[in-house]
Amino acid sequence: MDELQPPRTLLNSISWNPAGLVACVARQHDTGEVLMLAWMDRAAVEETLATGRVCHYSRSRRGPWRKGETSGQVQRRMESRLDCDGGTLLARVEQTGAACHTGRRSCFYRAARDGALATIADPAVLYGAVRHEAGA
Amino acid sequence: MDELQPPRTLLNSISWNPAGLVACVARQHDTGEVLMLAWMDRAAVEETLATGRVCHYSRSRRGPWRKGETSGQVQRRMESRLDCDGGTLLARVEQTGAACHTGRRSCFYRAARDGALATIADPAVLYGAVRHEAGA
Repeated sequence: MDELQPPRTLLNSISWNPAGLVACVARQHDTGEVLMLAWMDRAAVEETLATGRVCHYSRSRRGPWRKGETSGQVQRRMESRLDCDGGTLLARVEQTGAACHTGRRSCFYRAARDGALATIADPAVLYGAVRHEAGA
Repeated sequence: MDELQPPRTLLNSISWNPAGLVACVARQHDTGEVLMLAWMDRAAVEETLATGRVCHYSRSRRGPWRKGETSGQVQRRMESRLDCDGGTLLARVEQTGAACHTGRRSCFYRAARDGALATIADPAVLYGAVRHEAGA
């Protein structure tokens, strides 16, 4: 006997970790640059899907982390993908300004070079500068 | 009094999670495609840096997961980056064949579409096919 299966959705296909979170890699939709990795709980995924504005989960504050809420550096969701085991999301986003709290476009601004860890990106876009330009 | 500080390296700048692991996003170095997210322990990072061939950590097998050891689908490390809080690596790699165990190039082959989760990539590169072509 066939039984009705609930439709497969992003939300019901996620494998939450023991803390109830899923990793989310944010990637700039047009350039492909990998901006950051953050975590989402169910509420953050639901809010991101509903609003189109990316909301992560702050493990330090134990609550929603609406990207750009205080800095203005918002992430607009363009597409959400899920990996084969459901443990990681890949969000294609439109990132305003800097994704990194250091003012850099991407959090991945350090690289192994000849045995040392080198900084390979300057903080060209600073939170303060961007907020000033925006008249904030 | 100045004291000699040990040089900052990738390895001593990683913030290991409580399980002693760090997340690693693997990205194809030329196309920029995000292939997968896996985990590394200290031994896996050391091996990857030393050999130039990516070794992850298998949480299910609790041991080294030398990418491609059985499938031939190896990842050659081109560059290793570390994010601002030290909790995530970004590996630029040269991926032979498929990164995903389903035979797909990338593990992120499902996307949210109109409320459903849609498969957006066919398994064009299958482990078996590639191994056969290689004479394995």
